[in-house]
Amino acid sequence: MAGELVSNSYGKSRVRLTKVTRRDDRHDLVELSVDIQLRGDFATSYTDGDNAKVVPTDTMKNTVYALARNHPLESPEEFGLALARHFLDRFAHVEAAEVRLTEDAWQRLIVGDGLSPIAFSGGSSEKRLTEVRHDRGGRVVAAGIAGLLLLKTTDSAFVGFIRDEYTTLPEVTDRIFATEVRARWTYARDPVEWNDAHAVVRQAMVETFARHKSDAVQQTLLAMGRAALDGCPEVAEIELTLPNQHRIPVNLTPFGLDNPNVVFVPTDEPYGDIRGTVRRV
Amino acid sequence: MAGELVSNSYGKSRVRLTKVTRRDDRHDLVELSVDIQLRGDFATSYTDGDNAKVVPTDTMKNTVYALARNHPLESPEEFGLALARHFLDRFAHVEAAEVRLTEDAWQRLIVGDGLSPIAFSGGSSEKRLTEVRHDRGGRVVAAGIAGLLLLKTTDSAFVGFIRDEYTTLPEVTDRIFATEVRARWTYARDPVEWNDAHAVVRQAMVETFARHKSDAVQQTLLAMGRAALDGCPEVAEIELTLPNQHRIPVNLTPFGLDNPNVVFVPTDEPYGDIRGTVRRV
Amino acid sequence: MAGELVSNSYGKSRVRLTKVTRRDDRHDLVELSVDIQLRGDFATSYTDGDNAKVVPTDTMKNTVYALARNHPLESPEEFGLALARHFLDRFAHVEAAEVRLTEDAWQRLIVGDGLSPIAFSGGSSEKRLTEVRHDRGGRVVAAGIAGLLLLKTTDSAFVGFIRDEYTTLPEVTDRIFATEVRARWTYARDPVEWNDAHAVVRQAMVETFARHKSDAVQQTLLAMGRAALDGCPEVAEIELTLPNQHRIPVNLTPFGLDNPNVVFVPTDEPYGDIRGTVRRV
Amino acid sequence: MAGELVSNSYGKSRVRLTKVTRRDDRHDLVELSVDIQLRGDFATSYTDGDNAKVVPTDTMKNTVYALARNHPLESPEEFGLALARHFLDRFAHVEAAEVRLTEDAWQRLIVGDGLSPIAFSGGSSEKRLTEVRHDRGGRVVAAGIAGLLLLKTTDSAFVGFIRDEYTTLPEVTDRIFATEVRARWTYARDPVEWNDAHAVVRQAMVETFARHKSDAVQQTLLAMGRAALDGCPEVAEIELTLPNQHRIPVNLTPFGLDNPNVVFVPTDEPYGDIRGTVRRV
Repeated sequence: MAGELVSNSYGKSRVRLTKVTRRDDRHDLVELSVDIQLRGDFATSYTDGDNAKVVPTDTMKNTVYALARNHPLESPEEFGLALARHFLDRFAHVEAAEVRLTEDAWQRLIVGDGLSPIAFSGGSSEKRLTEVRHDRGGRVVAAGIAGLLLLKTTDSAFVGFIRDEYTTLPEVTDRIFATEVRARWTYARDPVEWNDAHAVVRQAMVETFARHKSDAVQQTLLAMGRAALDGCPEVAEIELTLPNQHRIPVNLTPFGLDNPNVVFVPTDEPYGDIRGTVRRV
Repeated sequence: MAGELVSNSYGKSRVRLTKVTRRDDRHDLVELSVDIQLRGDFATSYTDGDNAKVVPTDTMKNTVYALARNHPLESPEEFGLALARHFLDRFAHVEAAEVRLTEDAWQRLIVGDGLSPIAFSGGSSEKRLTEVRHDRGGRVVAAGIAGLLLLKTTDSAFVGFIRDEYTTLPEVTDRIFATEVRARWTYARDPVEWNDAHAVVRQAMVETFARHKSDAVQQTLLAMGRAALDGCPEVAEIELTLPNQHRIPVNLTPFGLDNPNVVFVPTDEPYGDIRGTVRRV
Repeated sequence: MAGELVSNSYGKSRVRLTKVTRRDDRHDLVELSVDIQLRGDFATSYTDGDNAKVVPTDTMKNTVYALARNHPLESPEEFGLALARHFLDRFAHVEAAEVRLTEDAWQRLIVGDGLSPIAFSGGSSEKRLTEVRHDRGGRVVAAGIAGLLLLKTTDSAFVGFIRDEYTTLPEVTDRIFATEVRARWTYARDPVEWNDAHAVVRQAMVETFARHKSDAVQQTLLAMGRAALDGCPEVAEIELTLPNQHRIPVNLTPFGLDNPNVVFVPTDEPYGDIRGTVRRV
Repeated sequence: MAGELVSNSYGKSRVRLTKVTRRDDRHDLVELSVDIQLRGDFATSYTDGDNAKVVPTDTMKNTVYALARNHPLESPEEFGLALARHFLDRFAHVEAAEVRLTEDAWQRLIVGDGLSPIAFSGGSSEKRLTEVRHDRGGRVVAAGIAGLLLLKTTDSAFVGFIRDEYTTLPEVTDRIFATEVRARWTYARDPVEWNDAHAVVRQAMVETFARHKSDAVQQTLLAMGRAALDGCPEVAEIELTLPNQHRIPVNLTPFGLDNPNVVFVPTDEPYGDIRGTVRRV
């Protein structure tokens, strides 16, 4: 046969977990989805169907639940590290373990004039992302955000661009800027507290989005990335993707009406797709 | 040919609209998706392909944008009524107009120690629903909520049910109760303010969910429906659907561990599907 | 409390089932998702949290799997009827059982110059729908289709419609007609073979779509409904929804190019939403 | 500020296109979604909001439609290459253009005893993928498949794997094997005909899936990859991802029934996630 297996990995994805911590005065709630991939000496399962070195993906799932039993699960980073270390410690032929965790946020319900100790609402498109890559030489922790929808009604312009024979876009000095932030950042060293670091990076980006006078989505992206680095000294590098989710002003002229930047069509596609990586210097 | 056309309607769906109201001190933002269906003397378009009485669905779309230009859009109910009246007033052969509006919530961003006047975050699965049905004899306004995810970690039991030869479910006195509320209520008369009425109904249901000692999802459903009627005197009737989105305790016994109600698998399917309609007496 | 429970039902949704029938020369494969709703004497679970008459939804799920064990599952209609009868026969306080089944199609793989006896491909958006409503007085069986995407590149016009001040749509004598058929039909009496009846109705609609010279989506809808009634004498009535999934010709004039009906933008929203019900006379 | 822009790109995504080729005896139909990313001298838009070198993403969209007007669009590979070359030829400061194309398949409808010349059905989850990366030094073309659902009812075993304290999975010699193939392959040189090459690779994988006696998903993956290389000599390397979409046998013992491998629960999550890359030697 013509082909050689040049790389391989395998694992379990979408292992979903709810963990409740029952304290005297309140319950805490964490919901995660965990993906695990192992690399190592697994080639014979591909070449010969010999599973003697295969840790079943079902076992990986069970391991997530067993380790979640006693782990405090105060941050996805710590739980991801515990999972990765488990597979490296237990199986000598595992060379690297990669664990990705996606957390769904739940907010306490407001009840009367306080917060419920036991009841929550969810449903945000925003997900907290965590990646742990651990091999025999060390480990890298990355964090991120997906699905964070942001929109500003002004302070965004787009002028001075190249015009060629396929250009019909008018210059605009005041447009809606809507995006769904996707960010992924790596830590040069562990922060004191993973959750605080995540919150600081998130808020730095959100505030920058709100305050920035944008002459290009690209410019706002760099400003947000720099704010993240400024806000959290442990962050080494951040990749950002800011899709430009267009709100297109409706032409009301055929109906005898003006449109002083008030009525728009929100569109999902096509969208501008703006990307950049910012590194601490 | 064998068949008679016994009912028909047509319209435009998913007309998406962003409206920005630019005030001196802040911008307000509304995002809606509008569905319109007309009923009336349209049979010849079905029987003969004769479109002489057809208002094109493209015109319906344009009408949404044109009417949105000057309408204050302070509530989806008022905008829906204006749209429905437009089609009835303009076209004598329209017998009824039904307008459904789905609103995406946007929250102002927290910036420093205040709220941004121009920047928002979105992405909630919760949608505010509005339905207006207007015919020559009058109109009905219904409101609703979809996609409201609620979860409580305790105060939910399920015991004393029928057991037959297909029953394996154990009785539980303390389980997680998670649901995605879908509610639809009709108004017997117009409330003073549509947005306030919606907020009151929503909060009545949310607080009841948080506080109720539940012996059955059915019981919580009725309590939530009654709280909605109690909270808002203009509501005539409310239909509720409370899917039971199971969190299944993981059996950790094979791993030498107990599970004192702390580790669960969240599942999307199958799900319990609990429905009820509560009417003011 | 202000509210009376005026209607209620409950059940289990998305009970997913794979059934393999292992014959000597081939394996047959059926994949279904089953939704069950029961109506009856269940009010005390709502009013008092008293579950003494509640058949747990978990038991409904188990019942699906147990009954699937020995049932031939040759058609979803027969399996749905068996499920509905089970709940009526077993529980005297159940007044009505409603079973909805959604079937995913799997096609045998082409291998060499024949069909594989054991391997299949799936993934179609088209679903076969079945609804059984069974109460103490009798039963109704409905069948349907969802997600059937059809497109024709010509033989569709739209002219002669009403023009008002919000109309900008040009008349077109040759446009793309794309739709996602949703159909639901009821049977006046049982056909000889449920699968054959379904196939005949489907093909009648598909062929009519392909051959019809359309002057309006409405006209094609009626023709498709009539063809269904003509093709299958047991069908009493058919409801059709034909969304008009627009392919919009691109204006290439700004680029010095014509567009003789060759380049289009497919759009998901907004869409025309055309509905009608055709009954045998 | 702390951060340096270390990489960047931008473009337009989800530019959707329908192209109809109107021949005398039939119409041909292609539907694509195009994503474009440009790399080059764009840093000042990030650093200064200076757009003097920015080709607007709206212009990229227009360019797709303009180039589609006269391009035969016989394969996505050729169209992707044309688009990539356009941006390189036109703009000296563009260093690389990456074009990704996702094609939705449409099949001719069967009408009477033939194929319709103008009407089609769609809706498959299977997508044909194409990637073109073109820089000043040359270009790479990759092709692929996503969303190809395959299932076999037998000829799949999983035994002899590692057991540890978290292992509960029984060994099985006969299980259902269901997967959603994701494949991406690169061409060492252009094939005579891109569409034929794609079809050959696809069929090689599908037939191998159907015929292979599988002792591990990993083993089937390698066999499918090798078959792809064997079938198409221009393919240099293929990456495959074969999620293991479990069908779990239902335990019917509590109901006094056996389950001789006939009743299963299909599950979406968690799933095994098996990956490998096979290169021609």
